[in-house]
Amino acid sequence: MKFNTLAYESGELMLLDQRELPNHMSYMSCHTLQDVIVAIRDMVVRGAPAIGVTAAYGMVLGAKEMKELTPATMLSVKEQLDRSRPTAVNLMWATERIFQRYSSCYEEALLEGTQLDKQASIAVLLEEAKRMHEEDTESCRLLSAYGNSLVSDGDTILTHCNAGALATTAYGTAVGVITAAYDAGKNIRVYADETRPRLQGARLTSWELFHHGVDVTLIADSVAATLIRDRVIDMVVVGADRIAANGDTANKIGTFMLAALCKQYQIPFYIAAPKSTVDFSLSSGKEIVIEERSGEEIRVVDGQRIALKEIPVYNPAFDVTPADHITAIITDEGIKVPPYETSLQTLLNKEERNE
Amino acid sequence: MKFNTLAYESGELMLLDQRELPNHMSYMSCHTLQDVIVAIRDMVVRGAPAIGVTAAYGMVLGAKEMKELTPATMLSVKEQLDRSRPTAVNLMWATERIFQRYSSCYEEALLEGTQLDKQASIAVLLEEAKRMHEEDTESCRLLSAYGNSLVSDGDTILTHCNAGALATTAYGTAVGVITAAYDAGKNIRVYADETRPRLQGARLTSWELFHHGVDVTLIADSVAATLIRDRVIDMVVVGADRIAANGDTANKIGTFMLAALCKQYQIPFYIAAPKSTVDFSLSSGKEIVIEERSGEEIRVVDGQRIALKEIPVYNPAFDVTPADHITAIITDEGIKVPPYETSLQTLLNKEERNE
Repeated sequence: MKFNTLAYESGELMLLDQRELPNHMSYMSCHTLQDVIVAIRDMVVRGAPAIGVTAAYGMVLGAKEMKELTPATMLSVKEQLDRSRPTAVNLMWATERIFQRYSSCYEEALLEGTQLDKQASIAVLLEEAKRMHEEDTESCRLLSAYGNSLVSDGDTILTHCNAGALATTAYGTAVGVITAAYDAGKNIRVYADETRPRLQGARLTSWELFHHGVDVTLIADSVAATLIRDRVIDMVVVGADRIAANGDTANKIGTFMLAALCKQYQIPFYIAAPKSTVDFSLSSGKEIVIEERSGEEIRVVDGQRIALKEIPVYNPAFDVTPADHITAIITDEGIKVPPYETSLQTLLNKEERNE
Repeated sequence: MKFNTLAYESGELMLLDQRELPNHMSYMSCHTLQDVIVAIRDMVVRGAPAIGVTAAYGMVLGAKEMKELTPATMLSVKEQLDRSRPTAVNLMWATERIFQRYSSCYEEALLEGTQLDKQASIAVLLEEAKRMHEEDTESCRLLSAYGNSLVSDGDTILTHCNAGALATTAYGTAVGVITAAYDAGKNIRVYADETRPRLQGARLTSWELFHHGVDVTLIADSVAATLIRDRVIDMVVVGADRIAANGDTANKIGTFMLAALCKQYQIPFYIAAPKSTVDFSLSSGKEIVIEERSGEEIRVVDGQRIALKEIPVYNPAFDVTPADHITAIITDEGIKVPPYETSLQTLLNKEERNE
């Protein structure tokens, strides 16, 4: 089984339509900014890194549609994309990076006293988006290799939601750690939480791992507690949607449940995420706004109504796991341990040094 | 909205088909032992007390089908019913009680040197089943009133699965406590876990509470952890499928998850169950056999496949919450507190005194 989470060629962004998995493998073809907004909003594509790269290509498609590439029009493209999934920091990070690339083209033209060449600028932005795509693949490869060093032969690993190749451009983050351990010949077992309400664990993670050949068992989210208590689980590894400067981590709803139980039963709990997931503008998780999604995601499963429409629902997409519940954060620049205030700063410093 | 979970009249046991809720209110009519076995096995009826009374009527229907009422034929009826849901102690308790009633008829006839009168015996067994039915209704009423004393005005209560009027002959246990508090004029709010895989919280509890007028909000099971941490929840109350002599409690999968979090964050965690749920033959929860159900319950939701058939699944129906996680056990004979080895014995002693 081979799949491409996303691929860009000749003005067309192809996205594996993850809403159709595991039953069908079909691709959505995006030609316009609006296509990309819909794809992100409706979760054709999901997972922080995949959303980021998708949004970068979305900036390119948006730029193409503009009559003129002014700071105002480009900012409007960026803002439309940013609004499509407000909790995904990679999205903002990616659109900002393309916007900055645009800004430098614009400033260069200003300095030279020439008009901005639209075609040439779009070529520059596309090159930047492709670079981000390659960087993500490479960062997942590195992160997975670092994470592999934490896995022992014979380990049983629990994961939640999907932080797999489907959530990134390749390899994945949490799932990348697992497949790297498997590919290294370690004898591992995996439990995958089904992850209500959108069931990414059932639909995506179990599908990915099963096809990779990994011994994976699917469970309801509420089963994890007893497996952690009974020490069936040797470690938990999950992805992240957003990490604050102090290590507090927003990830799929249910992540905190696992972290709290791991803390109680002293089971290692790892976050696996590329450095771009760290939002240094947030000093702690208290500043993370939790996206609340439609109650119909809970009341209706695959078109079947399981609760009356009149029943109120609380459906937060994420929860925040406090830094003191996290054993280590596996990044593409190595494994960061507490205190995260210090260890995560090394990512920022290096990035700054690169500039 | 009025409904009868179960009703017996003129050789017909009517069961509200809970598989069709919340979308349709239909009744299954049971005329034979096999009908009752199917109804229990396929969860037309569920909830320990409702299963118990259903099984008692099942014994009566089974007796009617026998050519002769011998100890062997009656034992075979009992064993068939017992196998239909092996974790439900009320089932065994109920079939045993009808079997004992039969045995006393049989012994009486033996002593008198007469043939057992089949019709007369069946009338005796039916009378016993009806008595059990009434006793359950009365015990839920009492239990709910005791539980109400633990609820403060303004409390927000979390419950899991369905321990409602739908799980009993009336009122319910955990839900009975909630509706008793509501009926007493207390201003309460309720969160109901949806309760994967069978979604009894979504389908049944939210339906029951909403129609009762209670302010109920439905959540995915994994949301509860953050609500407990953030002290949105003032107390958790759930039912029980089986309680060991030391207070260890088997209940719907996910119950332990809540209990562990309540223990960590010092939120009161209550079990509400009639005394018949206590199985004094089990010294601790270690002796409770956990029923493992089909993986298709996880892989398929309402006929929609969400995970490949080939994916292994671990689908325990229950988990065991250790006694030291339970603040109190609300019974029809008062509120029992730790140490349960002593406090639960008062139930047994009273029962013995009744004999």
